[in-house]
Amino acid sequence: MRVEIVAVGTELLLGQIADTNGQWLGEHLAAAGVDSYFHQAVGDNRARIATALRTALARGDAVIACGGLGPTQDDITREAIAEVMNVPLVRHAEISRRIEGFFRARGRAMSPNNLRQADVPRGATVIDQTRGTAPGLICPLGRKVVYAVPGVPHEMAEMFERAILPDLRRRMTEAGEGAGVIMSRVLRTWGTSESALSEALQGRIDALDALDALDAPAQGGGRAGTVTIAFLASGIEGIKVRLTARARDEDGARSALDAEEKEVREVLAATLGDIVFGLDDVSMELAVAALLVEQRLSLGVAESLTGGLIAARLVGVPGASTWLRGGVVAYDSAVKFSVLGVAEGPVVTEEAAIAMARGVRRVLGSAIGLGVTGVAGPDSQEGLAPGTVFVALALPNGVTPSRSLRLPGDRERVRQYSAISALDLLRRTLRTPEHGFEAPTLG
Amino acid sequence: MRVEIVAVGTELLLGQIADTNGQWLGEHLAAAGVDSYFHQAVGDNRARIATALRTALARGDAVIACGGLGPTQDDITREAIAEVMNVPLVRHAEISRRIEGFFRARGRAMSPNNLRQADVPRGATVIDQTRGTAPGLICPLGRKVVYAVPGVPHEMAEMFERAILPDLRRRMTEAGEGAGVIMSRVLRTWGTSESALSEALQGRIDALDALDALDAPAQGGGRAGTVTIAFLASGIEGIKVRLTARARDEDGARSALDAEEKEVREVLAATLGDIVFGLDDVSMELAVAALLVEQRLSLGVAESLTGGLIAARLVGVPGASTWLRGGVVAYDSAVKFSVLGVAEGPVVTEEAAIAMARGVRRVLGSAIGLGVTGVAGPDSQEGLAPGTVFVALALPNGVTPSRSLRLPGDRERVRQYSAISALDLLRRTLRTPEHGFEAPTLG
Repeated sequence: MRVEIVAVGTELLLGQIADTNGQWLGEHLAAAGVDSYFHQAVGDNRARIATALRTALARGDAVIACGGLGPTQDDITREAIAEVMNVPLVRHAEISRRIEGFFRARGRAMSPNNLRQADVPRGATVIDQTRGTAPGLICPLGRKVVYAVPGVPHEMAEMFERAILPDLRRRMTEAGEGAGVIMSRVLRTWGTSESALSEALQGRIDALDALDALDAPAQGGGRAGTVTIAFLASGIEGIKVRLTARARDEDGARSALDAEEKEVREVLAATLGDIVFGLDDVSMELAVAALLVEQRLSLGVAESLTGGLIAARLVGVPGASTWLRGGVVAYDSAVKFSVLGVAEGPVVTEEAAIAMARGVRRVLGSAIGLGVTGVAGPDSQEGLAPGTVFVALALPNGVTPSRSLRLPGDRERVRQYSAISALDLLRRTLRTPEHGFEAPTLG
Repeated sequence: MRVEIVAVGTELLLGQIADTNGQWLGEHLAAAGVDSYFHQAVGDNRARIATALRTALARGDAVIACGGLGPTQDDITREAIAEVMNVPLVRHAEISRRIEGFFRARGRAMSPNNLRQADVPRGATVIDQTRGTAPGLICPLGRKVVYAVPGVPHEMAEMFERAILPDLRRRMTEAGEGAGVIMSRVLRTWGTSESALSEALQGRIDALDALDALDAPAQGGGRAGTVTIAFLASGIEGIKVRLTARARDEDGARSALDAEEKEVREVLAATLGDIVFGLDDVSMELAVAALLVEQRLSLGVAESLTGGLIAARLVGVPGASTWLRGGVVAYDSAVKFSVLGVAEGPVVTEEAAIAMARGVRRVLGSAIGLGVTGVAGPDSQEGLAPGTVFVALALPNGVTPSRSLRLPGDRERVRQYSAISALDLLRRTLRTPEHGFEAPTLG
């Protein structure tokens, strides 16, 4: 099963936005074991969208078209698909009602244009919307298929997981492809570089290659499942180690992943320390939240250069109200002195970070205080270069673990790295409260 | 002259990196007045690169292939182009010498693979490297052409400017095509829906279409430039109105954009109010920052459900230290009472938002206080549904403009919409301090 992606939108061709949907779909198709050999981008032009779809159908078995399903006159993916299918568009009564209901529920007037979103090529199946108004489409063309999804990233992703991937899997099974199962698991790391990870895990990669050769896997994978390891830099969120298992069934894949995860964790702990903060969708703040809940500790954060980024990430965790008291964004030095009780003087020091952590703990009445100060740039401050950052904790027992960091990148990256580094200090401390804090190094 | 871009690299298909080269080239081709109707991405596979090139040549007059020119075995763009041209590769003696010199000058051993970069399809012209080792190629195919450039962004960009764009211009002139210019400008809006914008501007769109037909533009655009209008939903950042002008020269395009921007602003102000917050890269926080600087006002923010998002966006503006005092993240109700002086009782009310704005203004000593409280979800709070949000300001004159909002979406979107809505309340108030605040409606 070869799937081609067609991203629709003149703004993509003009370079006004990056094709992040194509990137996301490429990653998720690969993780699902589906081949994708070509991507295309095309503008909001009916004839050219039709050309792109015909080209994609000639090269592949399935096409995912992203974008051009909205209510305006330049949203014409529906028309182009109908042209390629050689069928008329039919207005779908149930979708019309839902779109009208969507507007009514919000007390907003609906312009008639919006009902264009209820137009469906005859013979197509609808993928219901759960978030916006434009439904997705599953459009059969003989044994091939065109899926259409909105260009809004979270709507696209949700429809892919809920409707497209299951449909693709069904088609693959019917085509006798990969009777096997592909499952992957991601170990998320912070505080090391891709080359250090790769070096640490080279032994495992070689061992898996040797096993793979021995086991001579059929398409469904070997008896116990064959596993591969890949690295994926994910910008400000650290580096992911992705384990992908191919096996005859889900149990086989899962047990292969379990076994390999254990091996990888042991190797990493022995070589690089406590760098794995979570699995799959577990973000740094979720890892921290789980530890705070488990240890029944509340938190307050005092932020300077991060300016609320840390608090905002923590508030993003559902249920944060049970353990997060709040925060003080002490951007102006005067606020550090007056609200947090930092001693007047230099404010980009380890002592200032500790005083901020102590101050916010006292002001907000939390069990733990976290303080961050530093230079985001572009200019130096107090004679210190951008990227100079201090993070500190004030713990219930009076201990104040702290760290001095030198972070790379521009203003935005320094701030983001500072936020996740501060959360990682808290995570490591909560994991080994008796040992204090082991320093991470940034790659 | 229609130019198609073909990005080469398996990492693009797997979503491991974004196709920023395609984005950059799209932007620069448009700015140069060159049409680009399709982009493709393809993996490091000779047959599939050849397929992508043939497809592109069938649809366009010129192809820019990015990537796959390096020294390793999976760099095979050269071989694929030679296949499409039906010519052999010939090792170029001068380039071989330069590559050897490159390594010698750096005191590094050269693996023989590196000389693959000196292989040139017979009949192609070389674009000399000024930064790395892999030269670019200009490969004629009858009256069409394939340009090949390295995938390293700064090498690609330099070769495009120095060699490809001049060659394209020469071909366009020879083909009698206007050396026209395309420029675009984006009006960024908050507080309305795409369909409402589209309806409000339908008259302008029709008028431009009529002008376009009258002016019978040559490919270089009409006398005064022809303008088109398009809409672009950009997730949590509102909806963009993009004006694109095609004219004989930059002055023509700019004056066409100036004239149309004025028309569009007038129509929008008359129909939808003060919804345009900035142009092009001006974010909501930049718009707010400019007003605060201009009016010499300082700001403090008190956040509940947004939990630091607003402060973090503001700190992201370079120079924020001149006008941003800081913030209080009062996530726990007790913090609202103890730190901000909100009266004990319900905290998801317009009164609580006002008290938070007043409290933070007092605690941080800022000229203006901004307060936000509400229900992010997933659960209701104080009997109020997720999406119920109150934003308020405390101004130096004692006035406290406030707004009650009903925002759509999940927890994350409600928080993001709350943050930008609060900033928009501040923006609108600063723009019309004598009139108070005009309510936005969210689309």
